[in-house]
Amino acid sequence: MNQISPVQADTAPKAPRPDLRRVDCDPDFWYPVAWSADLKKDKTLAVSYAGTPIVLVRPEEGSVFALYDRCPHRQVPLSKGTVNGQTVRCCYHGWAFGRSGRCIDVPYLGKGKLPNGVRTFPVREAGGLIFIFPGDPEKADTVPFPKLAQTDNPKYKTKHFSPRVNCHYTFMHENLMDMNHQFLHRRQMGQIKARFLGQDKGENFIEARYSFMRCAGQQPLAERLIFGKHKDLQGKEQPVEEVVTIRTEYPYQTLRITDKDGDLIMDLWTAYVPVDKEQRVTQSFGLLSILRPQTPLLIDLIWPALGWFTNRIFLEDKEIVELEQAAWNEVGHDRNVEIFPVVVGLRELLARCGIAHDDDTRPDTKPAAPATAPTTA
Amino acid sequence: MNQISPVQADTAPKAPRPDLRRVDCDPDFWYPVAWSADLKKDKTLAVSYAGTPIVLVRPEEGSVFALYDRCPHRQVPLSKGTVNGQTVRCCYHGWAFGRSGRCIDVPYLGKGKLPNGVRTFPVREAGGLIFIFPGDPEKADTVPFPKLAQTDNPKYKTKHFSPRVNCHYTFMHENLMDMNHQFLHRRQMGQIKARFLGQDKGENFIEARYSFMRCAGQQPLAERLIFGKHKDLQGKEQPVEEVVTIRTEYPYQTLRITDKDGDLIMDLWTAYVPVDKEQRVTQSFGLLSILRPQTPLLIDLIWPALGWFTNRIFLEDKEIVELEQAAWNEVGHDRNVEIFPVVVGLRELLARCGIAHDDDTRPDTKPAAPATAPTTA
Amino acid sequence: MNQISPVQADTAPKAPRPDLRRVDCDPDFWYPVAWSADLKKDKTLAVSYAGTPIVLVRPEEGSVFALYDRCPHRQVPLSKGTVNGQTVRCCYHGWAFGRSGRCIDVPYLGKGKLPNGVRTFPVREAGGLIFIFPGDPEKADTVPFPKLAQTDNPKYKTKHFSPRVNCHYTFMHENLMDMNHQFLHRRQMGQIKARFLGQDKGENFIEARYSFMRCAGQQPLAERLIFGKHKDLQGKEQPVEEVVTIRTEYPYQTLRITDKDGDLIMDLWTAYVPVDKEQRVTQSFGLLSILRPQTPLLIDLIWPALGWFTNRIFLEDKEIVELEQAAWNEVGHDRNVEIFPVVVGLRELLARCGIAHDDDTRPDTKPAAPATAPTTA
Repeated sequence: MNQISPVQADTAPKAPRPDLRRVDCDPDFWYPVAWSADLKKDKTLAVSYAGTPIVLVRPEEGSVFALYDRCPHRQVPLSKGTVNGQTVRCCYHGWAFGRSGRCIDVPYLGKGKLPNGVRTFPVREAGGLIFIFPGDPEKADTVPFPKLAQTDNPKYKTKHFSPRVNCHYTFMHENLMDMNHQFLHRRQMGQIKARFLGQDKGENFIEARYSFMRCAGQQPLAERLIFGKHKDLQGKEQPVEEVVTIRTEYPYQTLRITDKDGDLIMDLWTAYVPVDKEQRVTQSFGLLSILRPQTPLLIDLIWPALGWFTNRIFLEDKEIVELEQAAWNEVGHDRNVEIFPVVVGLRELLARCGIAHDDDTRPDTKPAAPATAPTTA
Repeated sequence: MNQISPVQADTAPKAPRPDLRRVDCDPDFWYPVAWSADLKKDKTLAVSYAGTPIVLVRPEEGSVFALYDRCPHRQVPLSKGTVNGQTVRCCYHGWAFGRSGRCIDVPYLGKGKLPNGVRTFPVREAGGLIFIFPGDPEKADTVPFPKLAQTDNPKYKTKHFSPRVNCHYTFMHENLMDMNHQFLHRRQMGQIKARFLGQDKGENFIEARYSFMRCAGQQPLAERLIFGKHKDLQGKEQPVEEVVTIRTEYPYQTLRITDKDGDLIMDLWTAYVPVDKEQRVTQSFGLLSILRPQTPLLIDLIWPALGWFTNRIFLEDKEIVELEQAAWNEVGHDRNVEIFPVVVGLRELLARCGIAHDDDTRPDTKPAAPATAPTTA
Repeated sequence: MNQISPVQADTAPKAPRPDLRRVDCDPDFWYPVAWSADLKKDKTLAVSYAGTPIVLVRPEEGSVFALYDRCPHRQVPLSKGTVNGQTVRCCYHGWAFGRSGRCIDVPYLGKGKLPNGVRTFPVREAGGLIFIFPGDPEKADTVPFPKLAQTDNPKYKTKHFSPRVNCHYTFMHENLMDMNHQFLHRRQMGQIKARFLGQDKGENFIEARYSFMRCAGQQPLAERLIFGKHKDLQGKEQPVEEVVTIRTEYPYQTLRITDKDGDLIMDLWTAYVPVDKEQRVTQSFGLLSILRPQTPLLIDLIWPALGWFTNRIFLEDKEIVELEQAAWNEVGHDRNVEIFPVVVGLRELLARCGIAHDDDTRPDTKPAAPATAPTTA
């Protein structure tokens, strides 16, 4: 039960179609692009979705709006401009645009029709995040908005994360889903061994459930403060009774931990938002909700340690997924040989729900010399 | 009169042919490449015109000469070499070349014919600048040499500018010609509104005339010292009686200010010289002549303030034209929607007088996702 | 005898086939990739041959082994992993590989066949260097292993050099072989003039012999300490009686100096190892053996001065060969016009023994504007 069968173990490396690193995110979803706190009243904020420049504008009164961040006149960023009432005015020649994207003033223009305006993006604000809908605006109202961890539940305290990682968003999904990578964090988390409990999947999701065994090493302080002290069984493997459920429900990912009573003690929600057109840079946004302990002050006491602990682990993950991207860049195609069925299923999900490129043979990504050779058994 | 009709306001964005940012400078003109003061006797100076490396050599006696800056032997820069009399000697194996470009010595070569020499460029020195003629040398004598502001007139004091800007030279012409961009300099120049007085054009030039109105804000000190204090009309718009004439006479540009008596009080001459082969980096050379005031010392007193003032304004222009180039790079073609007839005419002039590329579809500049959308009126 | 005939002096520059800078090193030789001292027991070291990532592993017991430095699972570098006995374990999910390249453990894998392993490289350690055989492993045993200067001779003391140079390896061979480039080192070595004594060549080697004349200037201290003080003949040219023999015996290069009695006083062995796939970055490894003087302590006294002196000279060579590579990059093909028969022969040797690319027309290396023009005689 705690080990998997090697379904693909004897498969020679080959480039699957489509190459998963050439599958773009489906834009017909709500994606976070900024923290609410980073956009002040009467100010603009320049953000990006997959190479599309977007200006967020928060007027003195009313909700945030989002425009294509290039003035149609000379293509300079509207985010460099000034906000007046419900309009943003380009810093260069002073053209002004409203929240509908319409051009409403060219200061030196006489009578006659005003120039064309700019594209707009549907905006929603929730859980401390500003979301835009980069795809077909007509779908914005019907596409489900995600549940954002426990940001609306006072029993939980929620931490914000937003690291930028130089890799394709799919590496992020695979990294978190495959808990066998605890070996990577052996210095931070002691020698934990993941125990795979089972999986579940559907049209737009896949989830894996794990428990953990501690093989050796000390339990780190931050971990103990969150989960409580494990019983010491004279050096034997001690089953940790929490269950970890990792779920990619396209395009988001969650990691939830329930204790032995089935209570949700940790709830992580993340989105991986492509920054550049090639989608090789990912802006992550994470909401990590922790159940407040009985002792009210304890959560505040452990909060800094929790931040330090999760950051240390995250830096290891960032390094490794960026090395995966670098290896992909070297040869220009995906060579992963996956043997873990959950990850195989996740990869199928991401390929199915995303938008595959057709240019599989860009000139800058020619295959390198043969990298692997069969070995004798 | 002070407002224009929206000739192109309802035109959808399209890529004109030729794309103005793929039009190279015509090399059959005299271009400045260095300040005279930066080339000492018996020294070399490495410069560049549109990716062509050029070494300037100033012998102890005689005029400056210019050679292709690669030794024909192993292509290392001759500018790294030594100057002896009328020759420059390559630093590597000591091959020597005269001002005619001819190879006149290979130290370790026996009898027999010397190797081929290097290409030369016609050189002229004037107004504190060293000019070369990068095109067909046979045309150098007949192509008119520009008038360099008031560098030869003792009634004026002349300032030197030579900023390098990361954009195509055509952005520089458009920036200066369109005085409606005073909005960009609102923090430096108060709220000045340009009043368009008229234009004039011909085969190889276009010029626009403006006066300025102050809408609000204080007149900056440096501006007041140059133009005198404007009459205060109790907060009303005060017509500034100077006339500003901006003229692109291919390939140079001038900005001249005359006072209410028609006297020339400021005369700016600029050249925008492409540095790299793609012509996306521009080395500007500017000569700014200011009429010396009646009080002889005044010009020296205001000189530092003038430098500070013009530099602040220039930095805003540099930022904005580099943003324009960056936006062009993103999509790989020109999307400007121009509504100001003078700039439309300027763009036609620059396209007509320059040399259009034929490779309009480089692989590194693929169009991005659609950027603008029609808006309801 | 001391001057050469201008065999190619009147040849117009043209791109020879194959372009020497598109000729890759032949991988069927032993190449050094690291110093032995840089790989500790139970540690890994990431190196590279022509863009192929290689991990060197030194177990606690037994010899160094070399694997392709990418885990076949997710392509992260095995060099980031841990060494246990005769295996290296990937840092990410803990897959383990033995010295045969075979995958010997996947911690979370149940019964069944283990995944494929990774490519291995034959390894040898000698003269303080770790060598790998990047080509066909079957040839490793029969291809001759080089003689490494005088590293095995106690009469000599050997210095290690390993500069990385941003140029194609062929520039390094040409630089050292053509002693007429002493002009480059005029500040370091006084005004030495090379006297060409003759050459010798065969299927896989070429060698040139020189003596040196001092035309003017003082003999540097370090040079005097190595070679002894030259007799002062009242300012006349003083024949230096040492003979310098430079030999490229593919793919290595040596420079040997014998004194007037024919004794070998200096023996330099170098290898130029391509780092990147394009082979435009070269990792040099040099062993410089100096005959210990009669006075035993003298060699230790001059050792620091010798290091300083050779380093100063090397920095000049590094700058010049990188300028050669930069000039090649500008135009995308080789324009060298060689007139020195030894270098012409060396270029033929390197083209003959290396592996020519077939992609002579990469899009990123389009020819620039014409660079040279015939000059009148």
